[in-house]
Amino acid sequence: MNPQVWAWPHKTGLHLCSLLVTKPEESTYSVLSPSVWVSTDHDDIEKVAKAWGAQVHRRSPEVSKDSSSSLDTIQEFVRLNPEVDVICHIQATSPCLHPFHLKEALEMITKQGFTSVFSVVREHHFRWQEVKKGGSVATQPLNLDPSNRPRRQDWDGELCENGSFYIYTRAMIERGLQGGKWAYYEMLPEYSVDIDVDIDWPVAEQRVLRFGYFGLDKPEVYFPVCVVPLQ
Amino acid sequence: MNPQVWAWPHKTGLHLCSLLVTKPEESTYSVLSPSVWVSTDHDDIEKVAKAWGAQVHRRSPEVSKDSSSSLDTIQEFVRLNPEVDVICHIQATSPCLHPFHLKEALEMITKQGFTSVFSVVREHHFRWQEVKKGGSVATQPLNLDPSNRPRRQDWDGELCENGSFYIYTRAMIERGLQGGKWAYYEMLPEYSVDIDVDIDWPVAEQRVLRFGYFGLDKPEVYFPVCVVPLQ
Repeated sequence: MNPQVWAWPHKTGLHLCSLLVTKPEESTYSVLSPSVWVSTDHDDIEKVAKAWGAQVHRRSPEVSKDSSSSLDTIQEFVRLNPEVDVICHIQATSPCLHPFHLKEALEMITKQGFTSVFSVVREHHFRWQEVKKGGSVATQPLNLDPSNRPRRQDWDGELCENGSFYIYTRAMIERGLQGGKWAYYEMLPEYSVDIDVDIDWPVAEQRVLRFGYFGLDKPEVYFPVCVVPLQ
Repeated sequence: MNPQVWAWPHKTGLHLCSLLVTKPEESTYSVLSPSVWVSTDHDDIEKVAKAWGAQVHRRSPEVSKDSSSSLDTIQEFVRLNPEVDVICHIQATSPCLHPFHLKEALEMITKQGFTSVFSVVREHHFRWQEVKKGGSVATQPLNLDPSNRPRRQDWDGELCENGSFYIYTRAMIERGLQGGKWAYYEMLPEYSVDIDVDIDWPVAEQRVLRFGYFGLDKPEVYFPVCVVPLQ
């Protein structure tokens, strides 16, 4: 099962691509006409995507397997859409992404010359070496001195991909993401939701209510919240 | 502000120590009489702790400062309680800890000869090097090859402290956690809640309902759930 799409009713059924059609203009890009695409191999998802105004890229069976990666699909897409110069891959599993995040990150490509920009969040995790289970071998600290442990406010933490978005130039996609000039875009933790396993759903629901993007107009009704009863 | 206790009404007011009074018996320990202590410098917290059957360690002002660490307090405690041989420091910010976690982890000290056992959770975070903000320097991947990104199910991830508990022998505390034989105890993600910043509260509330420990008898009432209204 492809972890990117497990939550959807059809395997490998959906991911979101926001495609920004751009043309090089001297050393920088200018966005000519952004377009939004949904990549799917399923009729029902195609219908919903079109009803909401998105264009649809019908994924071929070759890039719709359980073992297919996002890169496989995006490579197919750019082959079929030669007018696209910059691709922003948005993951549906990160529902607190706002337009300003994408606008600022895209400018790092169009104005600062990076070839790949992706979202990260700052984590404060003390990591330890994995050892064989049940053995008597001691573990070792990887990023701390346990006898002189920094307080959170005295440690910058580490930057981790949060899976929200990845923006690439066409050239980066065509060469399989090798080389290039990579930059991260740091998102605040409140916007950084990643629905990965089932216990992430209640978290995401709470976060979307408070930090989600609802378009230019705010909705007039409360969203339903899943309250999990005691077992 | 001490990050361990920020959520409580009194700064440096509360942490939980579960103290297991043990005596060496040949090469292993056997638990003689476990005892539960609350360490605090505040009268109200002392009252609540005693009402719930815990013993109280009155922290001195020297180890109750904003800059005090948990280790400072535990070192004071073991000086004042020479009969204690093994100390289990439980953090109130991890409310899904169950007795079986502590029982299994303690046996790693009493039966397997480790001097320190602490809880971890498996994380799957792709980390990137931090670079100066606003600059044009590219970042570098630290634990992945972006052109050959592993799928989650093909990568074991990394073991990170989840802050739930730390168990030490007296000798480890006395020598300031230097040296010793360290082991981790892996907790499943559903039990691994760490209340660190305010947006963690709704997550913790959801998790406690489903994965918390309510003693031998389950409660008969639903816990209130905080539903955050739209701003």
